[in-house]
Amino acid sequence: MTDIDASAGRKRLHVPMPLRWGDLDAFNHVNNTSMLKLLEEARIRAFWRANGQDGQDAPATAVLDSGIEHGVLSLIARQEIEYLRPVPYQRRPLDVQLWFGRIGGSSIEICYEVYSPLDVDSQDVEPQELYARSTAVLVLVDAETGRPRRLTDEQRAAWTPLLDDPIVYARRG
Amino acid sequence: MTDIDASAGRKRLHVPMPLRWGDLDAFNHVNNTSMLKLLEEARIRAFWRANGQDGQDAPATAVLDSGIEHGVLSLIARQEIEYLRPVPYQRRPLDVQLWFGRIGGSSIEICYEVYSPLDVDSQDVEPQELYARSTAVLVLVDAETGRPRRLTDEQRAAWTPLLDDPIVYARRG
Amino acid sequence: MTDIDASAGRKRLHVPMPLRWGDLDAFNHVNNTSMLKLLEEARIRAFWRANGQDGQDAPATAVLDSGIEHGVLSLIARQEIEYLRPVPYQRRPLDVQLWFGRIGGSSIEICYEVYSPLDVDSQDVEPQELYARSTAVLVLVDAETGRPRRLTDEQRAAWTPLLDDPIVYARRG
Amino acid sequence: MTDIDASAGRKRLHVPMPLRWGDLDAFNHVNNTSMLKLLEEARIRAFWRANGQDGQDAPATAVLDSGIEHGVLSLIARQEIEYLRPVPYQRRPLDVQLWFGRIGGSSIEICYEVYSPLDVDSQDVEPQELYARSTAVLVLVDAETGRPRRLTDEQRAAWTPLLDDPIVYARRG
Repeated sequence: MTDIDASAGRKRLHVPMPLRWGDLDAFNHVNNTSMLKLLEEARIRAFWRANGQDGQDAPATAVLDSGIEHGVLSLIARQEIEYLRPVPYQRRPLDVQLWFGRIGGSSIEICYEVYSPLDVDSQDVEPQELYARSTAVLVLVDAETGRPRRLTDEQRAAWTPLLDDPIVYARRG
Repeated sequence: MTDIDASAGRKRLHVPMPLRWGDLDAFNHVNNTSMLKLLEEARIRAFWRANGQDGQDAPATAVLDSGIEHGVLSLIARQEIEYLRPVPYQRRPLDVQLWFGRIGGSSIEICYEVYSPLDVDSQDVEPQELYARSTAVLVLVDAETGRPRRLTDEQRAAWTPLLDDPIVYARRG
Repeated sequence: MTDIDASAGRKRLHVPMPLRWGDLDAFNHVNNTSMLKLLEEARIRAFWRANGQDGQDAPATAVLDSGIEHGVLSLIARQEIEYLRPVPYQRRPLDVQLWFGRIGGSSIEICYEVYSPLDVDSQDVEPQELYARSTAVLVLVDAETGRPRRLTDEQRAAWTPLLDDPIVYARRG
Repeated sequence: MTDIDASAGRKRLHVPMPLRWGDLDAFNHVNNTSMLKLLEEARIRAFWRANGQDGQDAPATAVLDSGIEHGVLSLIARQEIEYLRPVPYQRRPLDVQLWFGRIGGSSIEICYEVYSPLDVDSQDVEPQELYARSTAVLVLVDAETGRPRRLTDEQRAAWTPLLDDPIVYARRG
């Protein structure tokens, strides 16, 4: 379901992310916090290791064992998000694109762009709308002590192909 | 994505419903209220009319115009649910099966069974696990007055093929 | 914050439950699944043991140690809910009333009625509106084996004063 | 319930914000997106006009009429958040502190600091823990056209007393 796109020199993982009607708020569009839920799920499908039975659906970047049962937690240390357009409910999955802005010792900076659905069937090449952009810093910590845990060699190897320029936020205060 | 199954005399619509890791609670399995969120979304994909661009993904039963903008709301009047097994996070969509237990004047009784993912690729026919069963009574009301609105002929025609026996709850009180 | 009401022979625990605007859905009233989130939180505040620092806010019925860290999970086996009126967003907490319909060996039947806010300041005695009624069967299970765990004597003693008639659902299928 | 604190030259509105157990994720602490839900609710209680019956609970800053029914929507244009400590479930409300970092023509920059509960009863002055800091830019738009709407004189007058230094994020990129 996920797909790496290296066109035009861009390094991006595409994760299709279905909306739920329950993501809407009383303004009748996707709530700003629901958008972060979508990014959370995209991140998990992109980078968390799948269980045995589900292996076939996971991309090559899914090499993170995270959870109390693994002794490692992945915590968001900071996140920044820019909302560019209201997002209506729609049946087709949004096109969440992910890459790394930085790969550190025990943390990674994940960059996201959220686009309107990829119209895979269509003949005409209608440009996708950019709904939101976001950057999250994720830190790996030991589940017991809370201290940072270094990325493994496997993680570094699997993620480096997705390392690209970080997002620059023009409108920042 | 949805599919009508009439095998063995059963009349069921299958809606694949992807989990989100955020559906888990601190017990590390799908929270009981998240399960109702999944049923809500399955119901919407099964029975709400799709917008123009999304038409190709909707089943023939998607004939309900619901929303403030349509002047009609679909409200849950009552719901009953039985949780049979804890549901872990998994990448593949759950198999939510829906049918009608009753089609009334202005209300419908929707029956659900939630199964573990359909293993479409597998050679071996492993039986699916039944996670939960539920019944919801949905009433159509006028968005302004709150008074019941009769089902349209189109709705009745589209939904009658899915009319079957209601769920009998053995463990009730 | 919680308070036991034994007026008119009724045995009920009142838990004030603040709404969040995010509980609303695109129909601009409290979503039916959000209502179950409110009941979940009321149940936890009513019956889960508080941590040391928080002890002062907990009622005498808060004697359940539930969580992976305690080796005991409290799982919902079944739930039934009747929605009687749409609930708008409001700043004052809803008045969730809880009691037991049954106290079994390793399970309890919790009954809920959700009312509009108690108008504590008001002189006039305006009747509260009943928004919803619900019954949940909660089973205590061993976190490792998943097998039922018997209620403790402390739990039985603390909860029996809230044992009363179960809810009878007139409109049931 | 809310309270303006002008001690030590700081201009801050305190909004007590109760957690829900459902705000936890499978890591057994408050999910990062749930924290944004808490900030959303704090913002609404701080700045949205209360309905008639609820007026007594609202601070003087609650002068924003937002919603489809008012013809004005308040949309988040961007948000930044720094998570400093994992937040466990607790019964007492978190102490969310709000002020304005900027009051523009049709937008405002809301600053938040989220602290552990205020121990109002305690004799000893234990310092509160800072859990998170955040900045959100909120834009008022016309519900029909989506075009920016200027703040009213009433809003400007009510909010200027809470204008203070914006948050400076040290760890940014």
